[in-house]
Amino acid sequence: MGMTHEPHGPAELKPIGVIRSPYLQRRDAPRQGRFSDMESTIEVYPAYAEGLQDVELHPHFIVLYWLDRSDRDTLRATPPGTRTEHGVFATRSPDRPNPIGFAVVDLIHSDGTRLVDRGLDALDGTPLLDLKPFSAGTDCVKE
Amino acid sequence: MGMTHEPHGPAELKPIGVIRSPYLQRRDAPRQGRFSDMESTIEVYPAYAEGLQDVELHPHFIVLYWLDRSDRDTLRATPPGTRTEHGVFATRSPDRPNPIGFAVVDLIHSDGTRLVDRGLDALDGTPLLDLKPFSAGTDCVKE
Repeated sequence: MGMTHEPHGPAELKPIGVIRSPYLQRRDAPRQGRFSDMESTIEVYPAYAEGLQDVELHPHFIVLYWLDRSDRDTLRATPPGTRTEHGVFATRSPDRPNPIGFAVVDLIHSDGTRLVDRGLDALDGTPLLDLKPFSAGTDCVKE
Repeated sequence: MGMTHEPHGPAELKPIGVIRSPYLQRRDAPRQGRFSDMESTIEVYPAYAEGLQDVELHPHFIVLYWLDRSDRDTLRATPPGTRTEHGVFATRSPDRPNPIGFAVVDLIHSDGTRLVDRGLDALDGTPLLDLKPFSAGTDCVKE
């Protein structure tokens, strides 16, 4: 492996952990986790523990996760509370060709490979793909 | 396919397009595209064109892309300009188990399946995974 170029496109994703949340089904989840006070727990698999060194230095994280209960074959979506259909790339629908969930969360505390956070709307059992420290300077745009 | 649960973890990603940029190698790319005025072009494959309907309604997008020239087997990184090694999940290194690039970009204009943007640091030829409209209300945290 190592530094290889993959001319034939993306490879398989490797789940690096799992999200434990109070949301068991899509209808349980808030429309945007950011507006909920609910806590969830990000359980990183022990094989990836070394990658967590110094996460406690950052108060906010970008979490990427795999929306494993999504429909990958639709290109249109009608956002909740509206009647207008749009292309999926003009919406935040979980149903999309590569259903990668994105959220900015508050890291409440970390204990080894368990990170307790606030701000996620992921369903219980959702595979974790990546954690990146959030930086308002690069990751925000004023609107 | 459709609405299926995948108990064995993430599936294969499908590239939905390709990013055309002036950056041919890792050493050419700015540390953070957000601070560059350089434009790049997101070319969405025709099979996904329907998903672009109404993208022009949004001035800023979250772009997810596959860092296909990254090392997936390292769990430590030393950020540029520093001497301290951290776990990769405490850094923005492109070398990580699931090398999914994240950027918030300005959409300058769209012409069918070609979207001209500012703010990306992706290398030329990078596979595109997803586009989501950016919303400061849900996607930013004040620091």
